[in-house]
Amino acid sequence: MTNQALAQQIGQALDKIRDTKPLVHQITNYVVMNDTANVTLQVGALPVMAHAKEEVAEMVQLAGALVLNPGTLEPDWVEAMTTAGEAAKACGVPTVLDPVGAGATTYRTETNLQLISHVQPEVVRGNPGEIAALLGVGGQVKGVESVGDLDDPPAVARHAAKAWSTTVAMTGVRDYVTDGDRAVAIDNGNQWLTTLTGTGCTATAVTGAFAAVESDFVVASAGALACLGYAAELAAPEAKGPGSFKVALYDAIYNLTGEQLTQGAKVEWLE
Amino acid sequence: MTNQALAQQIGQALDKIRDTKPLVHQITNYVVMNDTANVTLQVGALPVMAHAKEEVAEMVQLAGALVLNPGTLEPDWVEAMTTAGEAAKACGVPTVLDPVGAGATTYRTETNLQLISHVQPEVVRGNPGEIAALLGVGGQVKGVESVGDLDDPPAVARHAAKAWSTTVAMTGVRDYVTDGDRAVAIDNGNQWLTTLTGTGCTATAVTGAFAAVESDFVVASAGALACLGYAAELAAPEAKGPGSFKVALYDAIYNLTGEQLTQGAKVEWLE
Amino acid sequence: MTNQALAQQIGQALDKIRDTKPLVHQITNYVVMNDTANVTLQVGALPVMAHAKEEVAEMVQLAGALVLNPGTLEPDWVEAMTTAGEAAKACGVPTVLDPVGAGATTYRTETNLQLISHVQPEVVRGNPGEIAALLGVGGQVKGVESVGDLDDPPAVARHAAKAWSTTVAMTGVRDYVTDGDRAVAIDNGNQWLTTLTGTGCTATAVTGAFAAVESDFVVASAGALACLGYAAELAAPEAKGPGSFKVALYDAIYNLTGEQLTQGAKVEWLE
Repeated sequence: MTNQALAQQIGQALDKIRDTKPLVHQITNYVVMNDTANVTLQVGALPVMAHAKEEVAEMVQLAGALVLNPGTLEPDWVEAMTTAGEAAKACGVPTVLDPVGAGATTYRTETNLQLISHVQPEVVRGNPGEIAALLGVGGQVKGVESVGDLDDPPAVARHAAKAWSTTVAMTGVRDYVTDGDRAVAIDNGNQWLTTLTGTGCTATAVTGAFAAVESDFVVASAGALACLGYAAELAAPEAKGPGSFKVALYDAIYNLTGEQLTQGAKVEWLE
Repeated sequence: MTNQALAQQIGQALDKIRDTKPLVHQITNYVVMNDTANVTLQVGALPVMAHAKEEVAEMVQLAGALVLNPGTLEPDWVEAMTTAGEAAKACGVPTVLDPVGAGATTYRTETNLQLISHVQPEVVRGNPGEIAALLGVGGQVKGVESVGDLDDPPAVARHAAKAWSTTVAMTGVRDYVTDGDRAVAIDNGNQWLTTLTGTGCTATAVTGAFAAVESDFVVASAGALACLGYAAELAAPEAKGPGSFKVALYDAIYNLTGEQLTQGAKVEWLE
Repeated sequence: MTNQALAQQIGQALDKIRDTKPLVHQITNYVVMNDTANVTLQVGALPVMAHAKEEVAEMVQLAGALVLNPGTLEPDWVEAMTTAGEAAKACGVPTVLDPVGAGATTYRTETNLQLISHVQPEVVRGNPGEIAALLGVGGQVKGVESVGDLDDPPAVARHAAKAWSTTVAMTGVRDYVTDGDRAVAIDNGNQWLTTLTGTGCTATAVTGAFAAVESDFVVASAGALACLGYAAELAAPEAKGPGSFKVALYDAIYNLTGEQLTQGAKVEWLE
């Protein structure tokens, strides 16, 4: 597939989200629930937040994708994530995992490794520090922020994708998406995204929406990151600070069409 | 009461909220807590979020109304809602229930039916899919969104109000409020409300504020829906998307006076 | 120290937050988590929300400050707050406590007294009603809002600081910060802050960021309140209501420099 064909498929995926309005079942953290529900709606899908073990297996059967985000994890929630993830696997619903803060504490690292092992998510979307920490190849995490640089981010992403048999979407100044074989770099986005809490979580929620309509998860993940990043570029001229940037970002995501996304997506296949 | 007299009583209720600043005790879902607390403040009341069984019965005695919203339900929270609802009944505090996502899973449907039965809420505020699902007369719920149309929404609302001995506020393109006997249609609002998560929950919180000052719960519920819907109309010219709409909506709720609401309310008694 | 020297130290503290990006570990309430995480980022620090007893003691060791806010308290969370607070004490990380709604219910009052006793926070940031209720000297709390006036707020604050061997930051139209010996009044801020939910909690989060870089907790607390209050003053001309005020407030906090804060801070040592 050429870069241009990839951009086209990404734009078509956005249109398909709007046409089919898939349900995106999210078991996510308290900090971002409102944000990720809103962005899910504005990208064209329907969000549902449900975490009780009494209902997650039933809810996920209605969904086009499952998003697991243990950003404010505790044992009951992790158990619900596992149950939901296993039910998703059983009924063919793709799962996207966001290993928030992996590497910061032993509990976060171990929980995310267990989720990867038990749930076998179709996509893992994290920052370089989190991915490296889960691989045990270094990487620094301060709370939930990645600090310090990896020597070779695309190689780390590929290594992780192979180790976990999944698609890895590693976000940073340059984003990398890979299934261990194919790899895409995405150059959309800007620094304003780093001034808001939970934009990584938001990227994960958008990835859920794309994964619900596009079964090539490399394309779906690249599409989600291009979508959020390009909307951030469109919003930037309105930003006088993080408050006004956030307003403009949500407006931009809502107003972005598939055709515009195809034109604005900066996606490039890597060797 | 004429339609004009109803609009007047609604405007007066808004003024009374501002004058008396009733406490609205909310046991609600994680997604909307910040939004419903803000809207409660901006309509003129005081919000308090408290869900521990150690304190809910004591807290609700200080309140003018109780709002129960099991949108991110789990057993401990449902137990607290039941305890709070029973305490509210014992001390004459009206309860407004929002059966979020009833019909989507068995757990949601059964929990909401139990809450209706044990708590006997003064108002049930839901969308057509949720109300119909609880009645067992069809209706489709996709996650927490109502999809598909009912044949005769006002008849379903009346049926529910009679079955549950409550006031039902059923929101949609046209809103219906009925106690099974009297019925009002409200035509305020616009499509921007559907681009934000939790506007139903917001309507429920505002209903709590109105129910704290207006003991005719048909008037209170119609007032809340007219208030939120008219504020949405006033906000629409500022909206470039859901982000800027939300900002303008909160500004509009805060700035709306009782007199303006009386003039802007599109409320009509039905036969 | 002169008032001018205090203002200078406050401006330098803000610069130091931006230079060192301390991690502020927050165990806080559901209503404000998104807001306090964002404001923490925008003031220049890194927020992390983590409440599981499996990780709080490990997480707090990475932090520059710990913020405890039992605004939506329940036993498991209170236990985690105690564990985190004790670990913070053991490793020299300062703790800021926000006794949200103390006085409204017995459970809130007792929990906050226990946290003060077990955790020995370096700063207690509350409104006059909460502080007075915890001291048992009257004060009225309606839900989580302070209502009614104390006769002599600075005396109450001093009394509390001495009783609890801490720095008390008591916010109101005029803010008072005291360690029982020295006392500062802060006159920044405006009425718009009262139209948003959780601005007290936001003040507490900002206090955490300042306490992470300034070990004189009277200066740190006064600095945080001047910072938030002055940003509110800068935001006011943009406000058409609470929605647009909040956007402008977040922009203003992000854009505020240490030098501007030194010039805008209205801080005064009291006898």
